[in-house]
Amino acid sequence: MAEALIYLDPQSPLSLQSQIRQRVVEGIIGGAFPAGSRLPSTRKLSQQLGVARNTVVLAYEQLIGEGFAETRDRSGIYVRENILRGRVGHTGSPAPAPNLDAGWRRKIRIRTQAEPGFHVPRNWQLHPFPFIEGHFDDSLYPTAQWREASRLALGTRFVEDGSVNEDDSDDPALVEEIRTKMLPRRGIAASPDEILITAGEQNALYLLSRLLADASTTVAMEEPGNPRLRQLLRQSGAELIHQGVDAGGIVVDERLAQAQVVCVTPSHQVPTAVTMDKARREALLAMAAQRDQLIIENDFDTEHNYLGSPHPALRGMDRENRVAYVSGFPRMLSPGLRIGFIVAAPELIREARKLRHMVVGRPSLQSQRTAALFLSLGHYDAAMARLHTVLGRRWDALRQALNHYHRETEITLPTRGGTSLWVQAPAYVPVVRLADAAARRGILIEPDAHYYGQESGSRNFYRLGVTSLPEDRIREGVNQLEKLVRELSGEHVPRLDPEDPGLLDGERLAALLPGAVIHYRTFYSDPCTIELHPGGHMTGRSGQSDEDCDEGRWWVEDDLYCRQWGQWSYGEEGRYQVTLHDNVIRWWRPGGRLVDSALVELAPDAA
Amino acid sequence: MAEALIYLDPQSPLSLQSQIRQRVVEGIIGGAFPAGSRLPSTRKLSQQLGVARNTVVLAYEQLIGEGFAETRDRSGIYVRENILRGRVGHTGSPAPAPNLDAGWRRKIRIRTQAEPGFHVPRNWQLHPFPFIEGHFDDSLYPTAQWREASRLALGTRFVEDGSVNEDDSDDPALVEEIRTKMLPRRGIAASPDEILITAGEQNALYLLSRLLADASTTVAMEEPGNPRLRQLLRQSGAELIHQGVDAGGIVVDERLAQAQVVCVTPSHQVPTAVTMDKARREALLAMAAQRDQLIIENDFDTEHNYLGSPHPALRGMDRENRVAYVSGFPRMLSPGLRIGFIVAAPELIREARKLRHMVVGRPSLQSQRTAALFLSLGHYDAAMARLHTVLGRRWDALRQALNHYHRETEITLPTRGGTSLWVQAPAYVPVVRLADAAARRGILIEPDAHYYGQESGSRNFYRLGVTSLPEDRIREGVNQLEKLVRELSGEHVPRLDPEDPGLLDGERLAALLPGAVIHYRTFYSDPCTIELHPGGHMTGRSGQSDEDCDEGRWWVEDDLYCRQWGQWSYGEEGRYQVTLHDNVIRWWRPGGRLVDSALVELAPDAA
Repeated sequence: MAEALIYLDPQSPLSLQSQIRQRVVEGIIGGAFPAGSRLPSTRKLSQQLGVARNTVVLAYEQLIGEGFAETRDRSGIYVRENILRGRVGHTGSPAPAPNLDAGWRRKIRIRTQAEPGFHVPRNWQLHPFPFIEGHFDDSLYPTAQWREASRLALGTRFVEDGSVNEDDSDDPALVEEIRTKMLPRRGIAASPDEILITAGEQNALYLLSRLLADASTTVAMEEPGNPRLRQLLRQSGAELIHQGVDAGGIVVDERLAQAQVVCVTPSHQVPTAVTMDKARREALLAMAAQRDQLIIENDFDTEHNYLGSPHPALRGMDRENRVAYVSGFPRMLSPGLRIGFIVAAPELIREARKLRHMVVGRPSLQSQRTAALFLSLGHYDAAMARLHTVLGRRWDALRQALNHYHRETEITLPTRGGTSLWVQAPAYVPVVRLADAAARRGILIEPDAHYYGQESGSRNFYRLGVTSLPEDRIREGVNQLEKLVRELSGEHVPRLDPEDPGLLDGERLAALLPGAVIHYRTFYSDPCTIELHPGGHMTGRSGQSDEDCDEGRWWVEDDLYCRQWGQWSYGEEGRYQVTLHDNVIRWWRPGGRLVDSALVELAPDAA
Repeated sequence: MAEALIYLDPQSPLSLQSQIRQRVVEGIIGGAFPAGSRLPSTRKLSQQLGVARNTVVLAYEQLIGEGFAETRDRSGIYVRENILRGRVGHTGSPAPAPNLDAGWRRKIRIRTQAEPGFHVPRNWQLHPFPFIEGHFDDSLYPTAQWREASRLALGTRFVEDGSVNEDDSDDPALVEEIRTKMLPRRGIAASPDEILITAGEQNALYLLSRLLADASTTVAMEEPGNPRLRQLLRQSGAELIHQGVDAGGIVVDERLAQAQVVCVTPSHQVPTAVTMDKARREALLAMAAQRDQLIIENDFDTEHNYLGSPHPALRGMDRENRVAYVSGFPRMLSPGLRIGFIVAAPELIREARKLRHMVVGRPSLQSQRTAALFLSLGHYDAAMARLHTVLGRRWDALRQALNHYHRETEITLPTRGGTSLWVQAPAYVPVVRLADAAARRGILIEPDAHYYGQESGSRNFYRLGVTSLPEDRIREGVNQLEKLVRELSGEHVPRLDPEDPGLLDGERLAALLPGAVIHYRTFYSDPCTIELHPGGHMTGRSGQSDEDCDEGRWWVEDDLYCRQWGQWSYGEEGRYQVTLHDNVIRWWRPGGRLVDSALVELAPDAA
């Protein structure tokens, strides 16, 4: 019976009434309820589905209102006769023979290189520890606020609004909001003719790469750098300079000076999250002026600097109109909205607008107005303030956990914020192997190979992001990752020589350590000094200017050095075996595996 | 005072509460309400604005909830201290010097040709007679249905849905709805790997032009034809064949056989609205098979055929997988949604997907799901059925009005539907001059020049569309346009020679006309026969097979021939002076201007 087609899905986001209507329409279009046939009675259907009869009545009324069905006096509700008018109807012809498909292959004029890729598993959210930058856990979306802005934008009738039309003008309300609310946060002043709305940031980069790069052009980009940008530049035929990144950002040198166009991500470099420092920014702009270069600045995670205050964008420092600035609505504000923008010289904006017209047309005014309302209602500022807090806590938790658990390597490119860290795996643990093994334990990390444009590929780094998992999972995720690193390290991690461990016994420890000063580096290459005071008290100072201090106590027990900090290392007690050779002190896990080492100054009176 | 910044706009789509919040946020961000300052009291603000105090209280509560403001015990509501944290703040630096703008000019590698253009005035809706194809009057939008689909789509959490992810897969729900609801209406069977969702139809055409056309390719397109497509093909560097269109569609001949790719709009040719007939479709596909050609089929106004039933798409007749089919969601369903799609061989779809990834990325899943819901809820079918009825009536009204008022020319390319007609202006009235003069009288028509790719430009046609004005305006618009044509025609329209008019007087008319048969052509080149029966009754038959018949009466009065139809000519009475030379009868407006002429067979016994 055709009414068996009508069923309800309790998981559906649709109301019962909507679901009933949907099923009936499917039945009509699919032919299960032919034109002129009688639909199941409301009484029968409500019993069958176990819903209130009125729900069925309302669904049927809607179908009648829409012309799908009609009532006939006293005899029920029928599918309307001419409802399928205007349809060709399925010819029943088979789909074209697939073996002819190959004919297309030699007719396709350009081939897009597949982007070298890291593909996040589709079920990433089922992994307990998805350290995946750019994926977002649900709690971050300001859903109610987007709904409000969307609802209001749906109520806007652009067709009634003389100020926009079927030409290529953007929504003036959005341009104004970006100009007065988003850009000043980045230190950028712009007039409306310097702003173009694009269908997302990728679309903005595409337009700029088409306009500014071709086979006669030399373009520099960061190494490691954004693989989607690299793909665009390669497709343009431009000669590429893969320019290294250090702690200050892209390296500005004679090699970079060879480029005509320089692509950079100064706010947080992709993928290292390094913030370009002020001196480097000035050097880059000075070189651009001297060598007549153009700069494409892609602003990522612009405002999430937790240490120190954010720098203005290059575009904000640019006195010569050499910078084309690309940014967008953060994806973690709206997964559905594709709104990016370019801020650049009017001449370039004019050309980009013409190219946009060909490529994709103006981004939907409805989407533009939604974004404008989200900004004008203050939701953008509120959401960014909230994200700053939430992501700042997560970032801090990640840093602490790495410092606590990861002792094999250091962070070589320190960051001041952002939403990810760029970590080097130990040389003897290939990062692809690490990522595979980690994924099997529910830990997702992103290996580095696709960020490099040069042949050599991976430098054995990986990226850990915090946008995709809550703060309280971070520590445990890092702990489990570190355990895995240790397992994979095998014999590479120094162990005590079981024949001659050379361990200090409790008596020696108690004699040597009082008054000792331990010189150390944190995971982030910051200096750290620990003083073991004779009475069992200890003080720690860390950071470039001792900005991070803690106190704790130390003692000796069962031939072990024991310590407990107030805050550091989560305030947990640690118990270690100790060796001392020359002035290097090493801590060993009971059982013989190296935990860490440091330089030590013993007190002059230590025995 | 800063509270003067808070004002309400009675025209705003926002609620009073939202407006208050918006103004306060603007004040905070703009610095009018500095961090730590006290906001106006709810009592004071509600008095100032003339709104209920509770409205202000609710707005303030929202601001507090969002972190913009905070209460301080008994002393009021204050702007939060650190609300602007994370912002660079406006540097106050001037925008880059605009005189350096010229530097970009020589650095831009590709220039997009401006699309030759007809630009609809921004205030087109203020014109009483906007015959503008592709613009839509408000009454056509199914606003409530889109809101429902949008609202439901906003409730869908794609992040929770394992079936889609940050790769390039489209929303499977939308692909399935297109596959099972839209394509069968066009006679197309397709599997999911033959479908790619694009950011609108233009984006689909862009991807295909990039993939299939380059400087080594010869591409044919219709002449006249879609200027945006021509712009894409020119930009690709392909050699273009501008192939003529006749009443059967694009002309299939040896010239067309030279192309490797043929671009066509078979359902309703752009801009003539001609429907390609079945024989031409078969000839085109046969030639494509013989010459190994590819076809890009852009399906426009697919279902609005009012005379006869619609043809299946070429893609539905294609047994060799040579057709790449492009269509989309009609813009008159949703001005805000940019959803198009390509149906083609899987190999081509794979390449198009990779290119899409670079150009714009996957169209937002939220938009895709909105479209899917609109389809699955039956709104698409209901809206299309409604549009079919409404636009069919308008199209008919336009045809009738043209037939009644426009007697100087005929429609040379007959159409069977669509939403526009392609009309030739009299040779002595240049169409650009006509369009300009018409616009000054509130009548918007689209001249033809930009539809032609060849040098010669305009053929003195113009396009009249019915999507943008209601049925009851159409007749008057055409009437006024015809008046204008007459004014612009000046001495070109034949007039009676005042010296020797040769008019038949009432006596001659009464003697000659009874039993006469008048042979005629309608504005649409259809034959039309009118029999003047002796008793004053008359019958008319029109169309290729007399499908349009009417009855009426005729009489002679004051030396004038008078007639009145039941339906034809709006059932209005007409009174004309008549001349007769050889067997050509001519009607003249009293005053001496030619109205129309026809062949006449007089009754054998006529004196």
